[in-house]
Amino acid sequence: MLNVISADHEGVPATDRGLAYGDGLFETIRMSGQRAVLRRYHLDRLATDARRLGIVVDYAELDRELTNATSRLAPIDADRPWILKLILTRGSGGRGYRPPEPSETRLIVSAAEMPPIPDTDSVVARTASFPLIVNSRLAGIKTLNRLEQVMASREFTGDEWELIMRNAHGDLVEGTRTNLIARVKDEWITPPVSAIAVAGVMRQYAMECLVASGETVIERSLTPDPGSLPGFRGLYLLNSVFGVVAVGSLDSVDLPVDGTLATICHPLKTLE
Amino acid sequence: MLNVISADHEGVPATDRGLAYGDGLFETIRMSGQRAVLRRYHLDRLATDARRLGIVVDYAELDRELTNATSRLAPIDADRPWILKLILTRGSGGRGYRPPEPSETRLIVSAAEMPPIPDTDSVVARTASFPLIVNSRLAGIKTLNRLEQVMASREFTGDEWELIMRNAHGDLVEGTRTNLIARVKDEWITPPVSAIAVAGVMRQYAMECLVASGETVIERSLTPDPGSLPGFRGLYLLNSVFGVVAVGSLDSVDLPVDGTLATICHPLKTLE
Repeated sequence: MLNVISADHEGVPATDRGLAYGDGLFETIRMSGQRAVLRRYHLDRLATDARRLGIVVDYAELDRELTNATSRLAPIDADRPWILKLILTRGSGGRGYRPPEPSETRLIVSAAEMPPIPDTDSVVARTASFPLIVNSRLAGIKTLNRLEQVMASREFTGDEWELIMRNAHGDLVEGTRTNLIARVKDEWITPPVSAIAVAGVMRQYAMECLVASGETVIERSLTPDPGSLPGFRGLYLLNSVFGVVAVGSLDSVDLPVDGTLATICHPLKTLE
Repeated sequence: MLNVISADHEGVPATDRGLAYGDGLFETIRMSGQRAVLRRYHLDRLATDARRLGIVVDYAELDRELTNATSRLAPIDADRPWILKLILTRGSGGRGYRPPEPSETRLIVSAAEMPPIPDTDSVVARTASFPLIVNSRLAGIKTLNRLEQVMASREFTGDEWELIMRNAHGDLVEGTRTNLIARVKDEWITPPVSAIAVAGVMRQYAMECLVASGETVIERSLTPDPGSLPGFRGLYLLNSVFGVVAVGSLDSVDLPVDGTLATICHPLKTLE
């Protein structure tokens, strides 16, 4: 049984392991009235990755609680987009880091404002100096251990829409809140799940959609300067709230912007 | 001004960035009645590392709140040892990972039971299969991002007192809740702060004490199998609650146990 906390009217116990150790995961879901955009993708990722961490959760119960949270938290104005945040933790207890057996999984639900969406064809990005170092055993999981993204975000100057993080080799790994996909010649290249911190649901959706359209998608690391690759045609930021956003300039160097991804998959349309 | 929450009578807002992203730090302090053991070391580390993360905190205020928490939470039986836990977070707010400017630092204080202390000369340890991958920019900081230690702790079988984590090269880095120091010939070797996840205050205390006693302490990585180093004399686990504990067996191989560390520094005496 999930211990559900609705953040609008109660606090979280200070003993929660999500607070103590980041022992949990989260989802940030774009909502259109009562409809959760990419609902199945978010639920699947949350349930799958909870299992990877050994956090016990029943899929049907998670599904039901998402519906309950939606009815409770949706704004009265049914057309207003909003954000539903789910935090799933291993609950309270245990001996230090060692989890209790059994543990009581806790779900914390809250509503947030929709952030402003870029209204231009492309955005300005810069690489962060704070590196992103991924433990392959936690790769791809949207855990509550996100201090690297927080520290990189402190480098925002206000002039850029996203900061892209590099690994120890200098390769581009992902943005603070977005995944990357590049078009090079007729291929789409995105860093593999084993090498990224968060495997976003929009990344998943876009990859499936491209493959279904007959495109070639390759999971491979992105060199420190992908814009200089022969045949480079564009770099895109993927996020389930914003959709797909083209990078028009990276570290003050203009990049080509190609509309193919939007033309093939219309991923933004799924957000409407 | 610190926003102080006493966990015995209130919850933490679900918007807290400590819960959302592990955006904070913590200290676990051994208490003897109203006395905080290694008090100055804990306060110094918390204040210094908060500054590294850009979390604003005033030392004098932290000091005062530690005293307040002690009076409020200390058990009536003044002789009973207990644990005081301080969690310091960047507070609530911000745009996603990006912290608000200014942020309101939050201090969450709670009391916990003293864990059982080993009553033998040495303990059994095993290496964990879950690796410890350190981002050098966060190295040594006791942040709330501790999922690697939680995951390694899930490997406890009940037969060992500690699980020691390895890095990508297989070197021994630290225990789930302890730092390491080895005696090899006439030198003391401990992995450098730049390569460890948590730089414990007992590690700091023991290093200072050894140096003050004329011993040679070297910060250097520990090979995958330190017990086979020529002149190896002992491996010790350091923790501010437990003090110094010798490893008598690592992965079922017996190790020599040498009483020098206790003889020179009596670090356990500071805990009484």
